[in-house]
Amino acid sequence: MAVDLARQALGALGPVVELGAVELRDRLASGALSALALAEACIARIEARDAEIRAWAWFDADFVRAQARHLDAHRASGKPIGPLHGLPVGVKDIIDTARIPTENGSAVDAGRVPLQDAFVVERLRQAGAVVMGKTVTTELAFMDPAVTRNPHNPGHTPGGSSSGSAAAVADGMVPLAIGTQTGGSVIRPASFCGVTGFKPSFGAIPRRGVLRQSQSLDTVGVFARDPAGAAMLAETLYGFDPSDPATALAPPPRLLETALSTPPFAPVFALVKPPGWDQADPQLHAGFAELAAALGDQVFEVSLPEAFEVAAAQRKCVNLAEMSRNLHRYGRDGAELLGARTREALAEGDEIRARDYLAALDWRGVLTAGLAAVFERCDAILCPAAPGPAPEGLSSTGDPVFNGLWTFCGTPAVTVPLLTAENGMPMGVQLVAAPGNDARLMRSACWLYAWADR
Amino acid sequence: MAVDLARQALGALGPVVELGAVELRDRLASGALSALALAEACIARIEARDAEIRAWAWFDADFVRAQARHLDAHRASGKPIGPLHGLPVGVKDIIDTARIPTENGSAVDAGRVPLQDAFVVERLRQAGAVVMGKTVTTELAFMDPAVTRNPHNPGHTPGGSSSGSAAAVADGMVPLAIGTQTGGSVIRPASFCGVTGFKPSFGAIPRRGVLRQSQSLDTVGVFARDPAGAAMLAETLYGFDPSDPATALAPPPRLLETALSTPPFAPVFALVKPPGWDQADPQLHAGFAELAAALGDQVFEVSLPEAFEVAAAQRKCVNLAEMSRNLHRYGRDGAELLGARTREALAEGDEIRARDYLAALDWRGVLTAGLAAVFERCDAILCPAAPGPAPEGLSSTGDPVFNGLWTFCGTPAVTVPLLTAENGMPMGVQLVAAPGNDARLMRSACWLYAWADR
Repeated sequence: MAVDLARQALGALGPVVELGAVELRDRLASGALSALALAEACIARIEARDAEIRAWAWFDADFVRAQARHLDAHRASGKPIGPLHGLPVGVKDIIDTARIPTENGSAVDAGRVPLQDAFVVERLRQAGAVVMGKTVTTELAFMDPAVTRNPHNPGHTPGGSSSGSAAAVADGMVPLAIGTQTGGSVIRPASFCGVTGFKPSFGAIPRRGVLRQSQSLDTVGVFARDPAGAAMLAETLYGFDPSDPATALAPPPRLLETALSTPPFAPVFALVKPPGWDQADPQLHAGFAELAAALGDQVFEVSLPEAFEVAAAQRKCVNLAEMSRNLHRYGRDGAELLGARTREALAEGDEIRARDYLAALDWRGVLTAGLAAVFERCDAILCPAAPGPAPEGLSSTGDPVFNGLWTFCGTPAVTVPLLTAENGMPMGVQLVAAPGNDARLMRSACWLYAWADR
Repeated sequence: MAVDLARQALGALGPVVELGAVELRDRLASGALSALALAEACIARIEARDAEIRAWAWFDADFVRAQARHLDAHRASGKPIGPLHGLPVGVKDIIDTARIPTENGSAVDAGRVPLQDAFVVERLRQAGAVVMGKTVTTELAFMDPAVTRNPHNPGHTPGGSSSGSAAAVADGMVPLAIGTQTGGSVIRPASFCGVTGFKPSFGAIPRRGVLRQSQSLDTVGVFARDPAGAAMLAETLYGFDPSDPATALAPPPRLLETALSTPPFAPVFALVKPPGWDQADPQLHAGFAELAAALGDQVFEVSLPEAFEVAAAQRKCVNLAEMSRNLHRYGRDGAELLGARTREALAEGDEIRARDYLAALDWRGVLTAGLAAVFERCDAILCPAAPGPAPEGLSSTGDPVFNGLWTFCGTPAVTVPLLTAENGMPMGVQLVAAPGNDARLMRSACWLYAWADR
């Protein structure tokens, strides 16, 4: 029966697992596609592929089917449906799901089952999404690699820490997924896996129920096949929660409507070669040269203020200091269960003095002020998402050098899969906008995505 | 001429320097008193007394007269006047005043003249107040005593760090003054000097242009002869400033109107004997026993949650860590100019680890949560403002043991001068309410002040 439905979906409607999330939403809303049929297609894909890819930390096909049937019945009853009605979404396993294991990628938390949904999971349910399961995260969303493999080549890392979310979307197991970024944990894996990754402005999406690694940096983000899908999912997650002081009571942006609209003028991009550019893969240099040439008058090069040379060290200081506080109990109670990178980071964080931490926090304002003049002259900054394609091997999740500075500044960032290396591995192109300009950023991303496909 | 006007004020209108600020406002608004006459009375008082009291760090009689003449002309022209029109206000010397020296009580900052007014000084000018001058602060608003003496007995400390503001109001040099509190720097000197001191909820008054000692604790507060005057001044200072993340865009409370209104029911007070109570002056114990007996059914005793036993240490950790960051340059460039207590505090703060600092910050939430059940049952907590009357000698500003915990919790607090020690020195009675309940707190304070005077 399950197989039949999956076949029906693949047969009658084409390979639904390859469609963009906005197209899927439209088919679901019109009744051309049932939530169950889509769920079965995704289940079939996971059952066929996940033994190799290992994107899922927790997955229960019957739980997925039960949600899908309930949503189909709800739709059939004529009641109003939510903006994600019937769309399966993967949820990174540092995000709490009520009565569903949430193990934070850590052996210390094996068997941990939260009683309450995170804010973003509540929002998913309200929107009518199907919670597809929990996607693999690196240990405590830090740098020790997880078991997930890159769908484009299982010998390569998918990136991290949102490894499973990126890989699951890239492999067609699910059209949408949620991740988080403290350094480069959304943009880097999205780039390595060839999907769209979107990290909204800091504070846009409440973090209640998300493992707190670093409160000044942790940002919830999303994965989709294309920028429009990312905008659609993110829009349902924006909001205010009194328990998250980074959030504010403010009207949420109309991300999807803006993203799908035509820009009044052709967007202008400021090409930035951030610290680390010279050490990046020559294929990346060549790809960006070609991209800039093709964009012509729509791109100009700009240098970041000198302060950005120290941004990585200051971001790291903030990250490790806050991590040493927030994850202290893991080091205290389960040090022997922790990976080497996590253990070293906790030890390093323990030694950071409060004065240096507070001084590092103050750099955010300096960096953001320095960017204002750049953002005045462009629709978005254009820069690499990672120093090259996903590295071979699973011993590292790759280098977040091109991500951490934007996380630190709180700027929204999106990566679009535009470039391909000689070995066939994808490379993302990252767009960055001023904090709060998320909707316009997504419009620029949609424009660039369509332009490259022209 | 100056003396004549002062005499006129004192003669024709009674000793205006002894009137409450609300009464003065009414006389000024009706034209019964001119701004210049009131200014001259204050100038005369300062010239007669300040050689002994030393409440003023900067004072220029002609500058005061010029403001007063301008305000009188403005009023005579029939233009609308502000809520503090013609009222002289002293400003603590860690609060920036444009083109007027602001030396932060530190030899390092000798000759420092800011180009911009602090937020609260802008508000004073908009409200039509007369900036009377800068009041003496302890060095960098910390614990090393300043030169100011207690007007009730110059052999005793006025308390600190807002020493000059408290002493100037107590001595009738000025009806109103602004101070700040990071530990107990408003409530303690107000108690020692026998005036009303009001520390609003954390974040109620923006701190732009105020020396940053400890961003998680620094709170602007006010001094007046009576609670109504304090409510009136504070109301003009509440607001939002984007540069101060502790502030929020919210409708400001109607402090004065509420404070002057009759409570719908007789207020009920929760008598709290906080950590340090047992070591307090027996006269204080006796005074509170008498007060509780007189209030009868309107008071019940309650114990603070156990977590409050550690509050002082956690508050100190936050204070010293942030101070070591914010005042680092004073220790680096001018250590030999610093007092011993400041120097030691900076050295101690330098050693605090980020993890301990962040853990200490988290205690705020624990403490505030523990208070919720208390505030549900009363209009305000009733507790001492200081462990006794102002100690003899000028080598210490006294013990802030009964203030720091409320500053840490961000609760509004007000001290009302109700008790007197055998040596004639005043002792304040402190009322504390839940964060945000500032207006109701001031109504309770006005009620208690009137009740004691009945």
